[in-house]
Amino acid sequence: MSSHFDGWPHIIEAQQFSRDWLEQEFLPLTDEMEGIISARGCKMLEGKRMVSLFYQPSTRTRMSFEMAMDYLGGSVVFSTENAREFSSAKKGETLRDTFLVINRYRPDVIVIRYDKEIGAKFAAEVSRAPVLNAGDREPGQHPTQALLDLRTIFKRRGAIDGLRIAMVGDLVNGRTVRSLSYLLGKFNGVRIFYVSPPNTRMLGDVKEYLGRHGVEYTELTDLREVAELVDVIYQTRAQLECGTVLNKSDGYFVVDPPILDLMRKDTIVMHPLPRVDEITTDVDNDPRAVYLTDQVDSGLLTRMALLKMILAPGE
Amino acid sequence: MSSHFDGWPHIIEAQQFSRDWLEQEFLPLTDEMEGIISARGCKMLEGKRMVSLFYQPSTRTRMSFEMAMDYLGGSVVFSTENAREFSSAKKGETLRDTFLVINRYRPDVIVIRYDKEIGAKFAAEVSRAPVLNAGDREPGQHPTQALLDLRTIFKRRGAIDGLRIAMVGDLVNGRTVRSLSYLLGKFNGVRIFYVSPPNTRMLGDVKEYLGRHGVEYTELTDLREVAELVDVIYQTRAQLECGTVLNKSDGYFVVDPPILDLMRKDTIVMHPLPRVDEITTDVDNDPRAVYLTDQVDSGLLTRMALLKMILAPGE
Amino acid sequence: MSSHFDGWPHIIEAQQFSRDWLEQEFLPLTDEMEGIISARGCKMLEGKRMVSLFYQPSTRTRMSFEMAMDYLGGSVVFSTENAREFSSAKKGETLRDTFLVINRYRPDVIVIRYDKEIGAKFAAEVSRAPVLNAGDREPGQHPTQALLDLRTIFKRRGAIDGLRIAMVGDLVNGRTVRSLSYLLGKFNGVRIFYVSPPNTRMLGDVKEYLGRHGVEYTELTDLREVAELVDVIYQTRAQLECGTVLNKSDGYFVVDPPILDLMRKDTIVMHPLPRVDEITTDVDNDPRAVYLTDQVDSGLLTRMALLKMILAPGE
Repeated sequence: MSSHFDGWPHIIEAQQFSRDWLEQEFLPLTDEMEGIISARGCKMLEGKRMVSLFYQPSTRTRMSFEMAMDYLGGSVVFSTENAREFSSAKKGETLRDTFLVINRYRPDVIVIRYDKEIGAKFAAEVSRAPVLNAGDREPGQHPTQALLDLRTIFKRRGAIDGLRIAMVGDLVNGRTVRSLSYLLGKFNGVRIFYVSPPNTRMLGDVKEYLGRHGVEYTELTDLREVAELVDVIYQTRAQLECGTVLNKSDGYFVVDPPILDLMRKDTIVMHPLPRVDEITTDVDNDPRAVYLTDQVDSGLLTRMALLKMILAPGE
Repeated sequence: MSSHFDGWPHIIEAQQFSRDWLEQEFLPLTDEMEGIISARGCKMLEGKRMVSLFYQPSTRTRMSFEMAMDYLGGSVVFSTENAREFSSAKKGETLRDTFLVINRYRPDVIVIRYDKEIGAKFAAEVSRAPVLNAGDREPGQHPTQALLDLRTIFKRRGAIDGLRIAMVGDLVNGRTVRSLSYLLGKFNGVRIFYVSPPNTRMLGDVKEYLGRHGVEYTELTDLREVAELVDVIYQTRAQLECGTVLNKSDGYFVVDPPILDLMRKDTIVMHPLPRVDEITTDVDNDPRAVYLTDQVDSGLLTRMALLKMILAPGE
Repeated sequence: MSSHFDGWPHIIEAQQFSRDWLEQEFLPLTDEMEGIISARGCKMLEGKRMVSLFYQPSTRTRMSFEMAMDYLGGSVVFSTENAREFSSAKKGETLRDTFLVINRYRPDVIVIRYDKEIGAKFAAEVSRAPVLNAGDREPGQHPTQALLDLRTIFKRRGAIDGLRIAMVGDLVNGRTVRSLSYLLGKFNGVRIFYVSPPNTRMLGDVKEYLGRHGVEYTELTDLREVAELVDVIYQTRAQLECGTVLNKSDGYFVVDPPILDLMRKDTIVMHPLPRVDEITTDVDNDPRAVYLTDQVDSGLLTRMALLKMILAPGE
C-alpha cells in the first residue's frame, strides 16, 4: 500500500493520496464500513488507543473521529478540544516536545487539529504513532474532509473524471476547498469554478498545482453564471473568526432558492459545515442538498476506513 | 408506556410525566437501580452510545449522567462541557443543524444542557435519538432534577399528596423550582410557599399551571414564617451569574441554625447544588439536611432509571 | 503497607512515603508495569472507575494518569481539565462540597490538580475514595512527579544515597523540586545545590525539613559552578504565569552546550516539562538528557504502580 499512499502511515495533506489508492482501496472500504454501523459496532480495533488533540475546537470533526474509533471497537484514551488555550501549549511548549512525550505513552494513533501552521506535518516528523490531520492552518488543509467530499461526489455520480464543480465563498481561509482541489487534481477532465470576492480568491499554491495536473479553473464572482453548468456547488463557510465578510455588492455567493431554480436536477449542494447563512435554510430539504445527510455519513465512514487501514491493515 | 409519558422518547419538561408513570414506573425503578451500584455496575446497556453536549458547564449534572451510563454498561462516546464557547456554535450554527448532524452518527441517546432557550425541545423536534434535557433557560426547566427531587421527598415521606413545601430564593432564574412545581401539580393537596424577594418571584406560567391543577401557593418574603409549618424547605442558589443578589433587608432567605430551630424534626432541607452561602455550612451535619446525601444519591439513580427505560425498555 | 505509607489510601505529599516503601514496594512495582505496557494492557482494574478533576490544565499529567488507568483495564468515567473555569467552582462551591458529592457516586479513585491551595489534602479529609494529588499550589507539591523523578534517578544510578543534585530555576513556584527535595530527605548522604536567582530561592519549609533529615544544601546563582560536580541537573520551568523572569544578569540558569561540556559523562539532565527555553533544544539529543525519554516513561509507570497498589493491592 505504501506505494499508493505517500505519507504512510500519517495522513497529512490531500496530495499524498494516489488515484489508485482512492478508487481501489479507499472508496470500497468506506462502503464496507456501513455494515459495521448497521451492526452497531465491531471489535476490529479492540485494544487500540487513540489520542485526540484539538488545538482549535471542532465538535463535529472530533465527534466524527471519536465515534469512528468507537464503532470499530477502539478506545479514545485521551481527548481535549482546547489544547491551545488550556494545556502546556500556553506555557510555550513546542509541538515537537508534545509529540515526543505523547509517543512515549505508546498510543496507536494521534488525531490533531492545529490552529497556527502545518501542525500535522511537524508532528509526523517526530511521531512513531500515525498522525491524522483533522485540519490545520496557514494556508491549511483538511485531508479527511477532502476524502469524505470525494466519496460524497463519487456516490452520487459514479465517477470523478469530467466533474464540473463550483467552489464558493472564502477560498483563502477555507481549508476544505484547498484540500478538495488538490484531490481533484488526481483525476481527468475536472473543471473548477472558483466563485469568490476578489479579496478571498484561491491561493497560488493550489492554482499552480492544478496547472501542473491539467485541471482547468476559472475565477468569477457570481454563482448564477455557473449554477446551471456544474455538477456540484461546494459552498464554504464565511470564516467570521478570520474577519471575512461576504459583501453582496461584490457578487453572488449565497445558495438560495434562485440558485436552486438554476441548478440541474442532478447537481448537488455541498458544505463542510458549520453553515451560517451562506446557504439559506429553505434549501435544506431540497433532495439536491447533501450537506446535512450524505456528507455527514461519508465523514464517519471515511474516518472509519482510515482507522481500519492504519490500525488493522491485514484484516 | 407512551400513554403515561407524553414526550416519549424525549425528556424535555416536567409536565410530560403522568402521576401513574411517576408512581408505578419511575419510583420503583430507581430503587432497583441501587442494586446495580452495589454490584459495581452491569452490562444492561452494553453497546449503547451516549453523546453528552453541554452548552453551559455543570460538573455535577454531567458527571451524574455519564456515571449513570457507565454503571449500566453503556458508553459515553462524546462529551463536551463548553459546546457554546468552543464549538461550531460559536461559528453561528443553529442547534437544528447540530442535532441533524449528530443524529447521522447514530448515537442511542443525547444529553443536552442549553443556555439560551428551550434547547432540548428544539433539539427533540429533529432528533431521532432520544434527547434528555439536562437543564435549559428562559425561563428554563430541569426535568431530571425535578424527578430526583420528587424521589428524595417520596423516600422520606412515603407520599407526595398533602405536601407542604417552601421554595426559597431566586425563583425567576431557578429552573429546578420551576420544574419541581410543575411536577407537584400532578399530586393532590400540595401547598407551596414561594419565599423570595419581590423581584425574583415565581413566573406566571408556573402559577397559572398550578391554578389549573389545584395547587395552592402563597408568596412571602420571610422563611421564618413558614419554617415550622412545612415538610420541605427547598433552598435555591443565588444565580450570581444572572446578577441576582439576595438582600437581607428584603426578607429572610437563608437556611441557618435559627431556621433549623424552627423546623420540625421530620422536615428536610433540600438544595439542587452548587451551594454558595444561602445555606450556612453549620447546617450540613443536621440529619434533616439532605442536599449532600439523599438528593445526590437520587440524582444518580434517577438518571440510571431514565436511561434504562429509554434504552432497554423491555429488560 | 499502612505503616510505610502514612497517607494511605490518599497520595497527598512526598513526605508521606517511607524509604522502605519506596525501595521495596514502589520501585520494584514500576518495573513490573513495563510488562503490561508491552502486552498492550491488562484487565487488572476492570470495573474500577477514575474521576479526573483538573482545576488547572495539564495535558501531560492528565494524559499520564488516564492512560495509566487504561493500560490497567480501568475506566476514566469522568474527566475535566477546566474544573475551575467551567464548573460549579465558578459558582462559588467549596472543594468540600464537590468531594462530598462526587463520593456519593462511588468512584474508586479521584485524581485532582488544584490551583489555589493544598486542595488534595482538603479533599482527602472528606473523601472515601482515594485522592491522588496531581499537583497543587501555595506553596504546592506534586508527589507523583517526585516519585517518577526518583525512579528516573534510581534507574540510572542504582541508588539514591550519596546523590549530588542541582535544582535550577524558579524554586519558589516549582512544586516538583519541592516534592523531590522532601523525597530525597528520606535517603542518606544526599547533597542538594539550589541554583536560582535570589528572589526565587527554595522556601523555608523545605529547608527546615532537609535540616531535620540531615540533607546538606547549598544555594548559589551560577549553574556552571556545580555542573561538573553533580550527578543530576534538575532544571525547572520558568513559571511565566507566576510572573517569573530569569534574568541572565542574575546568574546562570540555563542548560545549554557549555553546561553539557562541563558535565560528567554519567550526569543526567532532568526537567518536569513543559520546557520553554531554559534547556536549549540542542541539548535534547545528548544521551544525558532524559526529560523527553526516561522521565516520561517513569511517569506512566509510576501512575500505573500507584493505581495498582491502591485499587488492586492484593493482586
